[in-house]
Amino acid sequence: MSFDSSSVLAVGTVAFDTIQTPFGSRERIVGGAGTYIGWSASTLGVRTGLVSVVGEDFAQEELNRMQNAGMLVEGIERKAGEKSFFWSGSYHMDMNGRDTLETELNVLADFKPVIPEEWKGAKWLMLGNIDPNLQASVLDQLEGRPELVVLDTMNFWMDIAMEPLKAVIARVDVLTINDEEARQLSGERSLMKAARCILNMGPRYLIIKKGEHGALLFHKGADGVEYFFCPALPLEEVVDPTGAGDSFAGGFIGHLASVGKTDFEAMKEAVVVGSALASFTCESFGTEGISSVDSGALNARLHQFRKMTRWEEQRVAVAL
Amino acid sequence: MSFDSSSVLAVGTVAFDTIQTPFGSRERIVGGAGTYIGWSASTLGVRTGLVSVVGEDFAQEELNRMQNAGMLVEGIERKAGEKSFFWSGSYHMDMNGRDTLETELNVLADFKPVIPEEWKGAKWLMLGNIDPNLQASVLDQLEGRPELVVLDTMNFWMDIAMEPLKAVIARVDVLTINDEEARQLSGERSLMKAARCILNMGPRYLIIKKGEHGALLFHKGADGVEYFFCPALPLEEVVDPTGAGDSFAGGFIGHLASVGKTDFEAMKEAVVVGSALASFTCESFGTEGISSVDSGALNARLHQFRKMTRWEEQRVAVAL
Repeated sequence: MSFDSSSVLAVGTVAFDTIQTPFGSRERIVGGAGTYIGWSASTLGVRTGLVSVVGEDFAQEELNRMQNAGMLVEGIERKAGEKSFFWSGSYHMDMNGRDTLETELNVLADFKPVIPEEWKGAKWLMLGNIDPNLQASVLDQLEGRPELVVLDTMNFWMDIAMEPLKAVIARVDVLTINDEEARQLSGERSLMKAARCILNMGPRYLIIKKGEHGALLFHKGADGVEYFFCPALPLEEVVDPTGAGDSFAGGFIGHLASVGKTDFEAMKEAVVVGSALASFTCESFGTEGISSVDSGALNARLHQFRKMTRWEEQRVAVAL
Repeated sequence: MSFDSSSVLAVGTVAFDTIQTPFGSRERIVGGAGTYIGWSASTLGVRTGLVSVVGEDFAQEELNRMQNAGMLVEGIERKAGEKSFFWSGSYHMDMNGRDTLETELNVLADFKPVIPEEWKGAKWLMLGNIDPNLQASVLDQLEGRPELVVLDTMNFWMDIAMEPLKAVIARVDVLTINDEEARQLSGERSLMKAARCILNMGPRYLIIKKGEHGALLFHKGADGVEYFFCPALPLEEVVDPTGAGDSFAGGFIGHLASVGKTDFEAMKEAVVVGSALASFTCESFGTEGISSVDSGALNARLHQFRKMTRWEEQRVAVAL
């Protein structure tokens, strides 16, 4: 099992989370952006080379489990005598908002991603939400430009590192952020205007993630800005949305790596695949949902997305 | 020009609004649920018989304008020496929230809808957001059961008149409310569970309006609850969302009356038509947008909705 031209290179945290939701709580379960990205891409049969760092408290057994699912974990440094990154949060009753209760950087404090030699020709790069300077350092280490670079970030970096963030955003193909972050980054209230502004910063594609309200994909096309919308699946219960955005990202880039395309049509499909995989993550705590998806369950869910968005334009236009 | 089997009977306010938004303000412009419903259905060539009440301050000229656009206004009582219903509100910067600054019931205080004799056989009934006891009194006045009854309501009536509201909801086919109202009415946090609960209260269809986040249609089918999602169009600017929900409702029932169908597929299309018409209302103050839509503009917008939601399931499934 080795890294090849359809493998995804992903940089992101591998960590522990303590989570409280209206449905219960979990103490120190495995989480982190890199973890969710890897599990999600794995459901598509796409190999992910993970670059991250953990402490001695991160069980080798868990790394073995990830490896058995198809992830390449030799890019995850395991630091003796140190502790893994830890986040603790509590979700509000409506599951849309959450409060961070505790953040311990631990090994993340002096994390410098080092890309293994044999992964430096990666064609598919997912830069998970970390310091934009580190995201840039990953691009600097590669041999040539990947076919596709997707970057995820958040308001925290806009608050404290806007200039390095804008510098790295200028170097990527796809940016994924939420609606409030799109407004903050652009200074525009209207999402259409925000999208136009952000697409002028460098990326060809912008994905605005709206949680339970779905995801908007914007594209700088020849005739101006085009867009596509994918709803979130209405779930019986959102048990734990932690990692939903990263599962989306892993499914998104995983689909593109799997089909080997980066055109607008493929991007639309990738948004649907990402949304479908995120829905599994929301249904259980931690990685429980995403780590037990098989292709039958995924195909059935993709069909649900199709049913929920399908209507016949011809029938409507005729009626006018 | 007379009321026929494809005409919509609509009961709702015809009133004055004073509106403040981040884009400016308008003083005492024509508004009201009935007004927006009528204008919206008119764009589809569907005649709407409006049942409402106004004061002497409501210009006959404005009623003439509505009549010229295809609305039947003889069901609008004009009370000498009295003033029209008046609402004043201010929208927040994000345009999703708003504060009511003033409400003067005026003629609405003792409004008792009286359905003109020749409209009592209506097949398509839109009960705009008024006191649920008055909505019930409209149903009581009709000769037989319309083919379709759509009811719009709001949290205000859930707070002060939940029992009469539930009683009239049990008598309709389609209920339209927003997501918070669906949660309040059902006592369920999950929209899926809320929908299932509400569909057990009587209606065959439930539409959950989520403003800029689109609309969800739920249907009690033979195999359980089915659903359909239509996004809202991302607009350059939401200038004034007042009346968007009523424009949606007018377009929704107008489309169904126009095609003469009430099956799930027709409902989906009606949700798209309603969403498209609501987008015109949001682009200008008051009825300015909705009153100047022609079929070319509407068809072009419906095509935008199609483009924004279209993806090929086959291509995704094959990739797995």
